[in-house]
Amino acid sequence: MTRGKFITFEGGEGTGKSTQAARLVDRLAATGIDVLRTREPGGSPGAEAIRDLVVSGSADRWSVRTELLLMYAARSDHLERTIGPALDQGRWVVCDRFADSSRVYQGLAGGADLALIEHIDAAVVGARQPDLTLVFDLPFELGLQRALGRGAAETRFETKGSAFHGRLRDGFRAVVEAHSERCRLIDAGGEPDAVAARVWAAVESLL
Amino acid sequence: MTRGKFITFEGGEGTGKSTQAARLVDRLAATGIDVLRTREPGGSPGAEAIRDLVVSGSADRWSVRTELLLMYAARSDHLERTIGPALDQGRWVVCDRFADSSRVYQGLAGGADLALIEHIDAAVVGARQPDLTLVFDLPFELGLQRALGRGAAETRFETKGSAFHGRLRDGFRAVVEAHSERCRLIDAGGEPDAVAARVWAAVESLL
Ligand SMILES: Nc1ncnc2c1ncn2[C@@H]1O[C@H](COP(=O)(O)OP(=O)(O)OP(=O)(O)O)[C@@H](O)[C@H]1O
Ligand SMILES: Nc1ncnc2c1ncn2[C@@H]1O[C@H](COP(=O)(O)OP(=O)(O)OP(=O)(O)O)[C@@H](O)[C@H]1O
Ligand SMILES: [Mg+2]
Ligand SMILES: [Mg+2]
Repeated sequence: MTRGKFITFEGGEGTGKSTQAARLVDRLAATGIDVLRTREPGGSPGAEAIRDLVVSGSADRWSVRTELLLMYAARSDHLERTIGPALDQGRWVVCDRFADSSRVYQGLAGGADLALIEHIDAAVVGARQPDLTLVFDLPFELGLQRALGRGAAETRFETKGSAFHGRLRDGFRAVVEAHSERCRLIDAGGEPDAVAARVWAAVESLL
Repeated sequence: MTRGKFITFEGGEGTGKSTQAARLVDRLAATGIDVLRTREPGGSPGAEAIRDLVVSGSADRWSVRTELLLMYAARSDHLERTIGPALDQGRWVVCDRFADSSRVYQGLAGGADLALIEHIDAAVVGARQPDLTLVFDLPFELGLQRALGRGAAETRFETKGSAFHGRLRDGFRAVVEAHSERCRLIDAGGEPDAVAARVWAAVESLL
């Protein structure tokens, strides 16, 4: 049995990741690929329980360091219970946010120790790195405008202030440079159809 | 303002840690020391919420690796919100379980990567290592017998099986050897008064 392909969607708030992840899953399924769509933080019962802790409460409920550890605890459970078993069965996995969000939100934009992140990532993700990571790139004001238009439920990150959101975009661009073997920067501007075409062009190389 | 002293109680289930931590706090308070009693996992609102996730559910709800990350997330919050501020105000802190429980439960007895634990510990605990750690030592059957006599609420760890509990005692003894500068092995057998006298003999060196 060949291992399935693991594709992650990354980028700032409201850049269109969830919209495009859903579209990609539909298109892959239409070509006959058995594909699982999942998301982070969350994606398994334990990880969803951790997600509830992370996304609720005031912006300063958790320090960046605590948040980092909670995110990797959720990721550890998600990999063990959902992602790993699916890939081992030959299924493809499309995940809406993954470890690069920790590198950027907690690390490059949040100030958590970058060496600590890589130590934990090596222990938790290890060899299960994504085969392809699509990093959605958009001026952050546009992304926040899109996200706010959606209505407000889980707003803890969205209220962090524009300086933080500015650092996110730079952070994701730095991740693409540092992990260029698996990351592709996707221009997230324009109509959903145009973005979907850019996503498909990047994914086709895996087929 | 001199920093307060930080004392931790460690050891297997039912060895008498909570009983003796309460007695020590009373005795320190009676000598005029401003002392805070706290516990792990927990000890701050965020850490208590994480504790609820860790101690409930079936024995295999979390993998050892996930559990390790959750424990250090709780510890990070506890240090930032409760322990650190108290010590900085000159208060003493007596903590019922701390990082050595992770070294033993998740590491030496549980099989989590020991190097990962030390990387995380260096980032989270850092220079806030305990001034004194009292490691309660008792044949594990006796400790489990004491603990089961207490009634069952949070039993996730207590149902892990006797091979695991055997490894705990060996693990705690190994921690005392590895951190002999701050750890004292306390014979936890006999009457509470006798154990309290052994605890006080170890604590007097800090006064
Ligand atoms: N290309 C697009 N042009 C305009 N609006 C879009 C586009 N793509 C998505 N949207 C809308 O923008 C909002 C945010 O999109 P989506 O939820 O997919 O973003 P996201 O990157 O998943 O956001 P978050 O980081 O908050 O999860 C939604 O209301 C969505 O319908
Ligand atoms: N020296 C002792 N002799 C006999 N019984 C004791 C002694 N010390 C404590 N106990 C009793 O044993 C039980 C376990 O004690 P305690 O709760 O203090 O242990 P613990 O180490 O905190 O356990 P746990 O690891 O489960 O938190 C309690 O019912 C307590 O009253
Ligand atoms: Mg989304
Ligand atoms: Mg106790």
